[in-house]
Amino acid sequence: MSAADLRKPAIVLIRPQLGENIGKAARAMLNFGLTEMRLVEPRDGWPNPSAGPAASGADIVLERATVYSSTAEAVADCAHVYATTVRKRGVTKPVLTPEEASREMASQPGRSAILFGPERSGLETEDVALARAILTVPINPEFGSLNLAQAVILCAYEWSKHEQLVQPTQEDLLPPAPQEELDGLISHLEGMLDPKGYYLPETRREATRRTLRGVLTKPGWNHLEVRTLRGVLSALEREPRK
Amino acid sequence: MSAADLRKPAIVLIRPQLGENIGKAARAMLNFGLTEMRLVEPRDGWPNPSAGPAASGADIVLERATVYSSTAEAVADCAHVYATTVRKRGVTKPVLTPEEASREMASQPGRSAILFGPERSGLETEDVALARAILTVPINPEFGSLNLAQAVILCAYEWSKHEQLVQPTQEDLLPPAPQEELDGLISHLEGMLDPKGYYLPETRREATRRTLRGVLTKPGWNHLEVRTLRGVLSALEREPRK
Repeated sequence: MSAADLRKPAIVLIRPQLGENIGKAARAMLNFGLTEMRLVEPRDGWPNPSAGPAASGADIVLERATVYSSTAEAVADCAHVYATTVRKRGVTKPVLTPEEASREMASQPGRSAILFGPERSGLETEDVALARAILTVPINPEFGSLNLAQAVILCAYEWSKHEQLVQPTQEDLLPPAPQEELDGLISHLEGMLDPKGYYLPETRREATRRTLRGVLTKPGWNHLEVRTLRGVLSALEREPRK
Repeated sequence: MSAADLRKPAIVLIRPQLGENIGKAARAMLNFGLTEMRLVEPRDGWPNPSAGPAASGADIVLERATVYSSTAEAVADCAHVYATTVRKRGVTKPVLTPEEASREMASQPGRSAILFGPERSGLETEDVALARAILTVPINPEFGSLNLAQAVILCAYEWSKHEQLVQPTQEDLLPPAPQEELDGLISHLEGMLDPKGYYLPETRREATRRTLRGVLTKPGWNHLEVRTLRGVLSALEREPRK
């Protein structure tokens, strides 16, 4: 993959329902030069014969699309994950417009991904929890009815404005660690907390996990920082020095 | 018509073919607060029963749509007419992006109109001649395949940036905790790490402390987040549950 391609955000469609909509999203992407589509659990499997005709020639995007069984897996290599939502739902993460998010993506090192939920329901709280920021299109408060391909095209369009503007980034500014390194840190900590009863009562376990994940996702720690924190955890697991 | 409505550009569809596409264009418009659609010689007449379902609830735009027998008549009251084309065709008119055109429309007095041609063929030279400027979406030179509704939504979206539609607000985003709360967290952690030998050798103690403080300062955690992390540390200090 070329350096230019690595700067482009991956478009991640989570549990998309209709193949036709996947095709339309591909067409929307390619209009503005985006080529990397990732699919998480497409409802009707993949490849989907309805996608091709709707892509109106954007076949290359569909041919290269990759399929994942979880959102976490789909963004494992991404340093910057944005979750698109129509409205905020009590999530305490930064909320950016497509314009602001595109400016960020163009200026920061590391791969970016934009998450789009299923056609009807949008992203689950679980998926949003993986993102460091929310991407919301400011829309008519009395008529918000963007379909999947429209949401994709607005993001792709805004992104394309920055394509030629990419500044060489400061070398000493490391990108956030890939998502899988962050996940390693979080799992390590969870493994230490669980025996201490931190996640009890059981009914609160998932909410508690999400809260803690949110706190640790916010910083955008780079891989050196994540490594430092892994060292902290390992030290805490040790027996005290005599 | 209100003063606010008079500032909004009219969307002029010239010889549109499918009712479904007229409906989709209406939906695209209303998402970004545009309500005035003008139709010039719609192929299948007007009203068109296929338009309503495709509008997904943007019925008000279709109900108010007005029909004209020529482009000149449709824009007779407009001071600023923009003709959308995918590529410029030797026309000696200013060529603007949707962003530039929206900035103009927002700043100049007088009504504006944006012309869109038929689905397949685009605007005729005749129609373009009525416009003072060309509006072109900068698109992938190797794959330009915007459909009518997509072209409309990009123009409507850009225009809406100049209106005060709801911007995503961040009122529920708390400021970073006061420094003393962060210090409390850091001291708590240091108190746990020191007996484990984390700061050894002694000569590295200050550098190690600085590194860890840097990692924990970067996030700008708010006071709820700091409290969560204090809870994590307290849990780690506990004896495991039997």
